[in-house]
Amino acid sequence: MSFADATAVERRGPGVYTAHIQPGWDIFGIANGGYTMTMVARAIGLEAGDRDLASITGYFTNPARPGPVEIDISPVKVGRSFSIFRATMSAEGRPLVTVLAGYADSGRSDGAAEIVDAPPPDLPAPEDCVRAVPSVDSPFPPPFMDKLQLFIHPDDARDLATGRANTPRVRGWFRLHEDEPEDSLAVVLACDAFPPAVFNSSLPPGWTPTFDMTVHIRDPRPRSWLMCQFRTRFVTGGLLEEDGEIWDVDGRLVAQSRQLALVPR
Amino acid sequence: MSFADATAVERRGPGVYTAHIQPGWDIFGIANGGYTMTMVARAIGLEAGDRDLASITGYFTNPARPGPVEIDISPVKVGRSFSIFRATMSAEGRPLVTVLAGYADSGRSDGAAEIVDAPPPDLPAPEDCVRAVPSVDSPFPPPFMDKLQLFIHPDDARDLATGRANTPRVRGWFRLHEDEPEDSLAVVLACDAFPPAVFNSSLPPGWTPTFDMTVHIRDPRPRSWLMCQFRTRFVTGGLLEEDGEIWDVDGRLVAQSRQLALVPR
Repeated sequence: MSFADATAVERRGPGVYTAHIQPGWDIFGIANGGYTMTMVARAIGLEAGDRDLASITGYFTNPARPGPVEIDISPVKVGRSFSIFRATMSAEGRPLVTVLAGYADSGRSDGAAEIVDAPPPDLPAPEDCVRAVPSVDSPFPPPFMDKLQLFIHPDDARDLATGRANTPRVRGWFRLHEDEPEDSLAVVLACDAFPPAVFNSSLPPGWTPTFDMTVHIRDPRPRSWLMCQFRTRFVTGGLLEEDGEIWDVDGRLVAQSRQLALVPR
Repeated sequence: MSFADATAVERRGPGVYTAHIQPGWDIFGIANGGYTMTMVARAIGLEAGDRDLASITGYFTNPARPGPVEIDISPVKVGRSFSIFRATMSAEGRPLVTVLAGYADSGRSDGAAEIVDAPPPDLPAPEDCVRAVPSVDSPFPPPFMDKLQLFIHPDDARDLATGRANTPRVRGWFRLHEDEPEDSLAVVLACDAFPPAVFNSSLPPGWTPTFDMTVHIRDPRPRSWLMCQFRTRFVTGGLLEEDGEIWDVDGRLVAQSRQLALVPR
């Protein structure tokens, strides 16, 4: 099943969509947050017309399990240059994720001044990285690793495998299967698809449920391979942040993400 | 007028509040986004009971001008360990800012492991910094600088004054007036009170309207002086991000913020 099919939505009326959380996108039976956010983003995108996703924030409220869901969308503002929507995905009336999303006109970047004050991640070619494949005897890497192509920097993969304390950072390549483009929806998925950066730290690994996640799309054009890096600098107060950057192979920033997650106990 | 009075809200019914955007909190006649978000956060906090604000995201939809506003709040989830609310502040039916916010139980941090992989900003004492005061002949610094105490790192203040290209970064001290505590609401304000970091860059200064802003409260305990730093690394696609860190004088991380803003034209 393609990514497009796995995140398909069906319009039932103005701002009302149904969808189906597919099996195999879960960790401990709970669907990946980037996957459910992508599904909501696909539905909102149909309401937003031909504007581009610029920003999306999801707050996760209940565990999402495979099965039918409803997505209810309300426009907050539909303006001349941008539109803001809110949406909630629910299963049997229980909210799973609630979202705000902003859409802007394409071409907003034409001729604008630029500052790029950080480099793309230093990644060996995908074939020199370590592909993440589902584990047969542990929840990590999770089953959905076989639904995409995720190649982890060999240094980070080694540390993940050995469990040695290191920098809380994970770098790698992301791609869907060969015949699908990496559009903004795939980018939202990419922002939550890698092993948590905190796994590469002195803390014991464990489930890090996401409290909220924001993805800022900085360049909405579709591309193929994505170069990704995720970093956690602060684990405090029972919470941690994970900051992501997504770049394309031409060295252009595609997106930034930040999530707040609960610390594994 | 105190900060508490300037952001006061009045409960009119379940989830319905009124408030008044005070004059003097504006730039070009449009109220500061941190100020309006603080007001919404104050109202949601009354609905959330004695839980602590952990995360708040606002998407800005229409310019907020002085005058009466209504804040409508809906619980998305009220759970055992956390609660999620959505809210919209409107004036005469026009949405000004729409918000998602998460509240968690106090004491969630007790005994948890910590990683702190970055230092607080290197700031001279407040008396050796440059206090931001309202300009009499320009929109910057804006009028609300006299409603709080904001002391900017002398290097950053010099660059702001001379307009010389430099690192897009602003560091400084934040405090309300002497008799008010820096609680989580003041922290939300602090995250949008400083001059935009991009003013310390080669780009021409101009209004950088906020598209969305998220504040993660990493330690909800009230304190006095806050040490703040804001950084913009990417100005691309007509957009820029500004990442903030708020620390206390004991070297504890208080909050992180990120906003997406439109590039000045």
